[in-house]
Amino acid sequence: MNDHVYKVIELVGSSTIGTDDAIRNAIERAARTVKHLDWFEVVEQRGHLQDGKIAHYQVKLKVGFRLED
Amino acid sequence: MNDHVYKVIELVGSSTIGTDDAIRNAIERAARTVKHLDWFEVVEQRGHLQDGKIAHYQVKLKVGFRLED
Amino acid sequence: MNDHVYKVIELVGSSTIGTDDAIRNAIERAARTVKHLDWFEVVEQRGHLQDGKIAHYQVKLKVGFRLED
Amino acid sequence: MNDHVYKVIELVGSSTIGTDDAIRNAIERAARTVKHLDWFEVVEQRGHLQDGKIAHYQVKLKVGFRLED
Amino acid sequence: MNDHVYKVIELVGSSTIGTDDAIRNAIERAARTVKHLDWFEVVEQRGHLQDGKIAHYQVKLKVGFRLED
Amino acid sequence: MNDHVYKVIELVGSSTIGTDDAIRNAIERAARTVKHLDWFEVVEQRGHLQDGKIAHYQVKLKVGFRLED
Amino acid sequence: MNDHVYKVIELVGSSTIGTDDAIRNAIERAARTVKHLDWFEVVEQRGHLQDGKIAHYQVKLKVGFRLED
Amino acid sequence: MNDHVYKVIELVGSSTIGTDDAIRNAIERAARTVKHLDWFEVVEQRGHLQDGKIAHYQVKLKVGFRLED
Amino acid sequence: MNDHVYKVIELVGSSTIGTDDAIRNAIERAARTVKHLDWFEVVEQRGHLQDGKIAHYQVKLKVGFRLED
Amino acid sequence: MNDHVYKVIELVGSSTIGTDDAIRNAIERAARTVKHLDWFEVVEQRGHLQDGKIAHYQVKLKVGFRLED
Amino acid sequence: MNDHVYKVIELVGSSTIGTDDAIRNAIERAARTVKHLDWFEVVEQRGHLQDGKIAHYQVKLKVGFRLED
Amino acid sequence: MNDHVYKVIELVGSSTIGTDDAIRNAIERAARTVKHLDWFEVVEQRGHLQDGKIAHYQVKLKVGFRLED
Repeated sequence: MNDHVYKVIELVGSSTIGTDDAIRNAIERAARTVKHLDWFEVVEQRGHLQDGKIAHYQVKLKVGFRLED
Repeated sequence: MNDHVYKVIELVGSSTIGTDDAIRNAIERAARTVKHLDWFEVVEQRGHLQDGKIAHYQVKLKVGFRLED
Repeated sequence: MNDHVYKVIELVGSSTIGTDDAIRNAIERAARTVKHLDWFEVVEQRGHLQDGKIAHYQVKLKVGFRLED
Repeated sequence: MNDHVYKVIELVGSSTIGTDDAIRNAIERAARTVKHLDWFEVVEQRGHLQDGKIAHYQVKLKVGFRLED
Repeated sequence: MNDHVYKVIELVGSSTIGTDDAIRNAIERAARTVKHLDWFEVVEQRGHLQDGKIAHYQVKLKVGFRLED
Repeated sequence: MNDHVYKVIELVGSSTIGTDDAIRNAIERAARTVKHLDWFEVVEQRGHLQDGKIAHYQVKLKVGFRLED
Repeated sequence: MNDHVYKVIELVGSSTIGTDDAIRNAIERAARTVKHLDWFEVVEQRGHLQDGKIAHYQVKLKVGFRLED
Repeated sequence: MNDHVYKVIELVGSSTIGTDDAIRNAIERAARTVKHLDWFEVVEQRGHLQDGKIAHYQVKLKVGFRLED
Repeated sequence: MNDHVYKVIELVGSSTIGTDDAIRNAIERAARTVKHLDWFEVVEQRGHLQDGKIAHYQVKLKVGFRLED
Repeated sequence: MNDHVYKVIELVGSSTIGTDDAIRNAIERAARTVKHLDWFEVVEQRGHLQDGKIAHYQVKLKVGFRLED
Repeated sequence: MNDHVYKVIELVGSSTIGTDDAIRNAIERAARTVKHLDWFEVVEQRGHLQDGKIAHYQVKLKVGFRLED
Repeated sequence: MNDHVYKVIELVGSSTIGTDDAIRNAIERAARTVKHLDWFEVVEQRGHLQDGKIAHYQVKLKVGFRLED
């Protein structure tokens, strides 16, 4: 069995609905161009406020995927 | 265009429902007395347990708002 | 009144549904064997990806409980 | 029962006597103008030296209090 | 001599010119409403980009001032 | 001579008297059930406020002890 | 309106002139190959010394840009 | 498939040989009393010096294992 | 002489042999597709356990390389 | 008036009595060989345990002093 | 070629002009007594305020230099 | 028995062989000029790359030694 090498990229997902949905949006976008997605780590949770309300939840996450040998 | 200055305050929102709701409660309370709310950053997520269950989700967040010139 | 001492253990809850549910799963499991659960603190939020989708949300948390005198 | 919101302010207490006394001085000062004080967290411990001796112990702390509904 | 107590507030200064100017803008704004300003600490340096150029340098800083007895 | 392995547990000691006393209370409690206690590290210092005064000093600490071979 | 996803890359800009110039050099280089640049965050400030003088200021920064849908 | 819950304990392994060996010693000791060991994370690397030489490499690590349902 | 700009990517190398070997595997893989590799920084050391033994050492590292002008 | 330069050294004071006393012991020792001591910052608080009791409080601190021009 | 060993010292430079000048003042002072200066890392940026204005920019930095064999 | 005071210095050891060897090189160099070396703590692990290979492993470490009374 091989000693795999993984690459980790950083993305920020945003959502009008909530924290978990912001994560899902980022993963879904990554999956369109990257194969072998393996894990994510939440790095930062922020949000944009407008008229005294939460306009967007923003989650910065690291996403790890296996590089092909 | 001006070089704005922002103030950042720290709040803890609590909720019996969940993390995102605790954030919303804190923002809603801030909006009652502060104008020009612009962003928030999650600083800490905790909770209070009672009878082996989550009684309150507690989220500490920084809230930034523009100061009037 | 006594000066209580608390013990803090570290757990990772996982869930196919979302972040808050992963926290609840960890607390529920702890409540089966530990009494006097008092608070939790979120330490890390990660997740496992499979076929370009979130397979499991994983939340590492510290759980504090009062030790009996 | 309500979902309370708390505000957190940052203070630096100083004392010629010691660390705990610097904390007490900050809390005492906060209590003169703020109601519903609930908890504090020590953020930083420093001190000022003069003539090779400790002139002041300085403790930076966050102080949390409940906002009225 | 008294054991002073200091309050620490958090501000974000912005500037089209540079980092130090963003700090000066925040301090200048604070000085309009707060007396006995004593020190600042840089907490975060960011910036806003527009058309591939730096539109604003943004510096988050803590500003400490002595409370009157 | 052996290559020892140590276990590290996390405790929160509380005291109405002060920081050092909260540490002593946690160590004293640990010593009742754990042998070969070797060192502690302070992780967090907090406190509970009541009626504008410090009701309890709370110190979270890691406590290390040697495991028997 | 869409829930945008952003990518964050890490660059180190260097300059013989100063800190802000090192940031500008990194942004200018990024703008040559990346569209929709949106913000930067300073991660680390270092420098290279030669003959007892600063030869290069080096600033590590995260640069965020919007991914096209 | 179940939503597993994991427990994380903290150990310090020591070795006269080197860093990796200190990790192996801690894992080997854990495996004697804990089942379903799943991962480790290095938290701290230290060492004890004697007569100007490294007497022991010491590695503090978190070890995670699955709790039985 | 030019003011170089560097890019920093994040990789996780794994190895059945040890920590240093996991670093070498990640660097070797990077060298296959990236030119002008200049430095690395270890960010995290973890490992995967199987049958009570270390199956893989995993090292997350940042790798910096010079961008061509 | 000159732009002073300060040097910062790191010391660990120990005491059988308590935290503040460990700080005082380190400062007192520094004052024997260093002039123009100006401030200290607490970096770490630990202790050595013996027979289930605190044998030594240990405080690691940075000590800053002005360099002569 | 030898495996060099470097020493790292911590300095605080101050300046009435700005951040970069405070760094230069510290390096210049170090160069008067230390040879083989190689790099610096910014650790902290603070400043002293007087009459509502920045009196001194203060930058704490680590400075690394090669030890002679 | 006395309340010892320790000094902590920061060194960077380098090695063409590996991480542990870089630590040993730093300790060996320190032992040539400092007595009563007591412990070390790893602060940072980096390395220099040349021609797509690791040219030097670099380990920054704090080294503590007892000051004579």
